[in-house]
Amino acid sequence: MPLSHRIEAAITRAINHGQGAGAVYKTPPRLASALEYAVFPGGARIRPTILMAVASACGDDAPGLADDAAAALELIHCGSLVHDDLPCFDNADQRRGKPTVFRAYNQPLAVLTGDSLIVLAFHTLALAMRDHPTRAAQLSLILARTTGMPGGICAGQGWESEDQIDLSAYHRAKTGALFVAATQMGAVAAGQDAEPWEELGARIGEAFQVADDLRDVLYDADALGKPAGQDQMHNRPNAVSELGVQGAIRRLKDILGGAISSIPSCPGEAQLAKMVNAYAERLTPVAPARSMKA
Amino acid sequence: MPLSHRIEAAITRAINHGQGAGAVYKTPPRLASALEYAVFPGGARIRPTILMAVASACGDDAPGLADDAAAALELIHCGSLVHDDLPCFDNADQRRGKPTVFRAYNQPLAVLTGDSLIVLAFHTLALAMRDHPTRAAQLSLILARTTGMPGGICAGQGWESEDQIDLSAYHRAKTGALFVAATQMGAVAAGQDAEPWEELGARIGEAFQVADDLRDVLYDADALGKPAGQDQMHNRPNAVSELGVQGAIRRLKDILGGAISSIPSCPGEAQLAKMVNAYAERLTPVAPARSMKA
Repeated sequence: MPLSHRIEAAITRAINHGQGAGAVYKTPPRLASALEYAVFPGGARIRPTILMAVASACGDDAPGLADDAAAALELIHCGSLVHDDLPCFDNADQRRGKPTVFRAYNQPLAVLTGDSLIVLAFHTLALAMRDHPTRAAQLSLILARTTGMPGGICAGQGWESEDQIDLSAYHRAKTGALFVAATQMGAVAAGQDAEPWEELGARIGEAFQVADDLRDVLYDADALGKPAGQDQMHNRPNAVSELGVQGAIRRLKDILGGAISSIPSCPGEAQLAKMVNAYAERLTPVAPARSMKA
Repeated sequence: MPLSHRIEAAITRAINHGQGAGAVYKTPPRLASALEYAVFPGGARIRPTILMAVASACGDDAPGLADDAAAALELIHCGSLVHDDLPCFDNADQRRGKPTVFRAYNQPLAVLTGDSLIVLAFHTLALAMRDHPTRAAQLSLILARTTGMPGGICAGQGWESEDQIDLSAYHRAKTGALFVAATQMGAVAAGQDAEPWEELGARIGEAFQVADDLRDVLYDADALGKPAGQDQMHNRPNAVSELGVQGAIRRLKDILGGAISSIPSCPGEAQLAKMVNAYAERLTPVAPARSMKA
């Protein structure tokens, strides 16, 4: 089965569970619906894809566990998007080409959807502990560390409420953390040590941040499926304002080169390098650029 | 060490960890501060106290694990209060006699504080898996089940966004779930099965809900440390409007009687019954009632 099918199937299983499939008691229907709305149809599923690619490169000897890990990671990512879109943060009307959760439902359900997705991620890993106690425990620890405080995406978002932003801590936590989760969880799901995989995740995260900064500046809302120019509007740090467009593209390529050379020795090393290269192509922005529009 | 000291010490350790104690990277100071603000000074700490009391009644052979479980449960409870107080839910200005987190900080930090506390709870249990893999995995599963969807406190709160509320599902999830967590996690932390402890938790939860309904009707904001009359204002179901004040008090006593007779056989059974009785006294509202005020 292709990785993308495994990922969608695993996320579907988790969401079905959250919606109360097989449960004896009734669940609130609108929240159950919002869970699904927040997660399907997905975006690029880049984090779980990296996770699965690393697990495959490491031998993927427990594919069910890799599936659960990939689902858990994507649930966290989707939950964070639901909260980021709230009026008190980005106040975004659109996400992935459709109304954001708080617009399609309401703010209370958007807060609860984010909360429920976070919990469902840890629930998914807790269920996996029956068959894989040691690995699933490690997965839970990595996911907690990269999601919450002091170093996860919550911490990253928290920097936006500071007068003085520590830029390096901000980017590492806000964007990098879940990419580190992706590479480390992929390795752990396949029975390997997490630590050697940190650098690859951190570098992919850094590249992703620069690419996102470029897209925010260069693309319009139609191409993004979400509002453009958000960094400037919210006065957020952006690599393009520091380095210029060409400088940021050069930086992106440097980082991805570094990422490839950081891949730990493993059976699927060459295949993984090919995947990072493919992402490098995809991440580098092309037309239609906003400035080219009439 | 008295249970209350163990609980405060365990919560302090968890919050210190969330604030980045010992971490190599910087953490956003306001979010770090808000984490602490949301949790200290505490309320009655009733859920972790019940957890510890059950663990003690079951022999408490792994006190460090019971401490971690108690902290994790209280972090979830405090996180849920921070989100419940948000403008889109209760829009509450006061909690435990001081401004709510969104008032004292801001809405973004209140959302992130709730998120971070949820993650920190699972983080605390994931760290405990090193020394107690099987028990801590079970604790994580119980906490996820009683926090998220389909049957946890998120589901309970979700019912408030429905036109048709299933009252029994609503109360069981919104209030009952974390009391079931308290009794079951206490038993599991001490190496016992979770299942026989469900009924005690459910009954204490039911009693707590009726007591809360009574307080909401009878007490004023000064006595509650939070706004009074919220159920009526938000048109929420309330036992007093169904049964009257005396009827609700009778119902409360019946439920607590049932709770005591549901205590599973264990070394500390008598002691535990005494504690539930003491709670029965504390829960039953006394003056000053709002109606007695000039």
